[in-house]
Amino acid sequence: MFTSEFLGTAILILLGAGVVAGQLLPRTKNHAGGWLMIAFGWGLGVYAGVYAAYLTGGHLNPAVTLGLAVSGQDLTTGVPATFVNIVIYIAGQMVGAFVGAVLCWLAYKQHFDQDEEPALKLGVFSTGPEIRSYGWNLVTEVLATFVLIAFVLYSGMTPAELGPLPVALVVVAIGVSLGGPTGYAINPARDLGPRIAHAVLPIRGKGGSDWSYAWVPVLGPILGAMLAALVVPLLVAL
Amino acid sequence: MFTSEFLGTAILILLGAGVVAGQLLPRTKNHAGGWLMIAFGWGLGVYAGVYAAYLTGGHLNPAVTLGLAVSGQDLTTGVPATFVNIVIYIAGQMVGAFVGAVLCWLAYKQHFDQDEEPALKLGVFSTGPEIRSYGWNLVTEVLATFVLIAFVLYSGMTPAELGPLPVALVVVAIGVSLGGPTGYAINPARDLGPRIAHAVLPIRGKGGSDWSYAWVPVLGPILGAMLAALVVPLLVAL
Amino acid sequence: MFTSEFLGTAILILLGAGVVAGQLLPRTKNHAGGWLMIAFGWGLGVYAGVYAAYLTGGHLNPAVTLGLAVSGQDLTTGVPATFVNIVIYIAGQMVGAFVGAVLCWLAYKQHFDQDEEPALKLGVFSTGPEIRSYGWNLVTEVLATFVLIAFVLYSGMTPAELGPLPVALVVVAIGVSLGGPTGYAINPARDLGPRIAHAVLPIRGKGGSDWSYAWVPVLGPILGAMLAALVVPLLVAL
Amino acid sequence: MFTSEFLGTAILILLGAGVVAGQLLPRTKNHAGGWLMIAFGWGLGVYAGVYAAYLTGGHLNPAVTLGLAVSGQDLTTGVPATFVNIVIYIAGQMVGAFVGAVLCWLAYKQHFDQDEEPALKLGVFSTGPEIRSYGWNLVTEVLATFVLIAFVLYSGMTPAELGPLPVALVVVAIGVSLGGPTGYAINPARDLGPRIAHAVLPIRGKGGSDWSYAWVPVLGPILGAMLAALVVPLLVAL
Repeated sequence: MFTSEFLGTAILILLGAGVVAGQLLPRTKNHAGGWLMIAFGWGLGVYAGVYAAYLTGGHLNPAVTLGLAVSGQDLTTGVPATFVNIVIYIAGQMVGAFVGAVLCWLAYKQHFDQDEEPALKLGVFSTGPEIRSYGWNLVTEVLATFVLIAFVLYSGMTPAELGPLPVALVVVAIGVSLGGPTGYAINPARDLGPRIAHAVLPIRGKGGSDWSYAWVPVLGPILGAMLAALVVPLLVAL
Repeated sequence: MFTSEFLGTAILILLGAGVVAGQLLPRTKNHAGGWLMIAFGWGLGVYAGVYAAYLTGGHLNPAVTLGLAVSGQDLTTGVPATFVNIVIYIAGQMVGAFVGAVLCWLAYKQHFDQDEEPALKLGVFSTGPEIRSYGWNLVTEVLATFVLIAFVLYSGMTPAELGPLPVALVVVAIGVSLGGPTGYAINPARDLGPRIAHAVLPIRGKGGSDWSYAWVPVLGPILGAMLAALVVPLLVAL
Repeated sequence: MFTSEFLGTAILILLGAGVVAGQLLPRTKNHAGGWLMIAFGWGLGVYAGVYAAYLTGGHLNPAVTLGLAVSGQDLTTGVPATFVNIVIYIAGQMVGAFVGAVLCWLAYKQHFDQDEEPALKLGVFSTGPEIRSYGWNLVTEVLATFVLIAFVLYSGMTPAELGPLPVALVVVAIGVSLGGPTGYAINPARDLGPRIAHAVLPIRGKGGSDWSYAWVPVLGPILGAMLAALVVPLLVAL
Repeated sequence: MFTSEFLGTAILILLGAGVVAGQLLPRTKNHAGGWLMIAFGWGLGVYAGVYAAYLTGGHLNPAVTLGLAVSGQDLTTGVPATFVNIVIYIAGQMVGAFVGAVLCWLAYKQHFDQDEEPALKLGVFSTGPEIRSYGWNLVTEVLATFVLIAFVLYSGMTPAELGPLPVALVVVAIGVSLGGPTGYAINPARDLGPRIAHAVLPIRGKGGSDWSYAWVPVLGPILGAMLAALVVPLLVAL
């Protein structure tokens, strides 16, 4: 289970951080390619990652794992939401996110070595708000993650032979629609793993890793997942 | 039935109004992300919303509900188009659209609080024409909604295992192709619910809610749906 | 059969011409939305149109009809490629393209009434080359249509439960990849029907309909379809 | 087998090189259409090409052929990975890539004849790095191809009725996310075949074919495929 979530999350972050690297770093071919490109990069990063993590249902996100657990579902067919399994899932996601960020740094190494604002180099790894306001930033992350986890909980009710395409498209939707204020972490591992990578990697000309914000993209997605896990069954019962 | 249409429409408007907020409001990451981004935001907002409203067939739009009723079809399997059911559907859609707009305001709260043209802040909530001309604006909304409802009535004839993806793609198509003059309401609830939210919310620096235009995106979609419900069976019979 | 091809092609042209109207005409919301938007507009226009023309297999294009006929296939299940059937198909496509262009003019009426280069107003209706050279323009249209018709002839060999999505995506592909020199008619009805509409409609400030070029987007797609119908079976037999 | 891989790869390169021609060459309609357009052009080029190469499983890429062979799989159902079959596949891919590049040159002939930087004309045919550094350019190509081949090896485990859409979307993902530094060859035939075409075609005002870089987009994808073929089964076994 660990290697499945590890590999899927590593591919997600390699692709997701990669599209941001292209957008932000100097002298890339996809420099300033636009927000729709970024949203497709992350959405299709989820798509490729879920394929790689087929053995574990392709969570790639502690918010998904916790949302399913709180709503009383199995993590995937045959894998009950025990404490040990949840820890293995989240460990795989965290280590995978860290390794994916390292690989993205290697893929864009020559561009990280260019002179550029330290904040933009951090932006490849982790999210940060456009207008810093911990409370409202948290609200945005809670709402965005609520949409994601509600979809995960509902999606089984609408049959389609699409594999992981629906969740990828919903991630694109959240990106274009709710990514504007905070950059839509909607996934604690997606933000924290690369932030640790940023802190420990010898990135040329890097600044701080903005640890004062780091709790928002961890707590917000967890709260959003809890909210969805509690509200969705209530609404269905009405 | 109420909660299903309520939740689906709330998610649709949270995502749809959200992408417009990102496009229009100052200091967002997706500022001026472009019209294709907006069209994908609304199309994929429909996509996510239909999943959430699976119990009721995912109308999210009084024009869909009325179009099906006028053409003599059930609202969804096992739900006949009685007056009471139609009222419940539309009530859920209206309240959901209102709540979705409130949630969007919360998600982008810090950006609504920036100084900006009042008209742009209204533009996040409701549609408005680029060139005001009630008659021609109505024509545009009628034609755009005709395409949507004709698709809804025809789509069952072409089997595909895609869930709500086809209708989402047609909404993207209408957005890029017919959204230019009026901003494509094509849905009375999508326009009126958020307009009421705009009127009652304490939005910093807001202007009027442009009630003189409000009837166009209500009447136009209803007329377009009626037209489709009457013309489509006629054409098939020829 | 006539009404099926008529309605499908009318929707295709309403949406396809519509996205170009948004791109080119003044004061639209999607003004200068970019070439990818245009390619999605036409591709998803095909998508919506094929759904509406389900009774006839959704050709919407004389090049498709002729390509199937020359390769010895039925036009759709139960409709043999007789001379009369081919004429009915193409008549429906031509009249539908004309009507779709009229509807697009109505949807964007206020924007057509603005002062603008006559060539841009024509550009909403019909294609024109960026560098006029009848021979090379013909080559581009032949190659682009070859790709489309080869796909139509091959696509049945790869099962997928996607309805008309694959052909829509291939039209997007042709648009972004081969649309640069001539604007990719790849369909005689798509170009000639709207050109006739341009000639007869009382469009404010319109110029000539560029009849000297009109034969290229008719002949090129027909030649490309013939080429595909002859080459594809040959290659499969090798 | 030769003609299947030949035709599929020719269509891939005609469409893929075509979108770059539109982006880079002067006076095209899709000039500077943006990186997302380019990524969709290549991704949907793969999509159309795989349909045409249905008889051979639609590799279109020596890295795919070698990746499957090294991992011990058949090239496609009923075609074992013998030396002769591998040679036929790769020969079809190389000749197809050459012919596709020639067709792209013909489709954009008038635009190639305009005055423009020789490097941009070469850029239509072959990839080149933004920051030349053979070692790091190789790393980028290895990582990008690893993602592609890992997906090919894993994808069979996630059932979906999508035909070649998933691999096309993953190619879009790699393009937007990892294409920034080197232009993502991820396919030796895609780069070498068109480079040979560039060298031999009488392109007006062309410069050199940059043979000093040519080994990177050949070796990188092969190494990435080997890596995926060795690592993926190991991770699954853990």
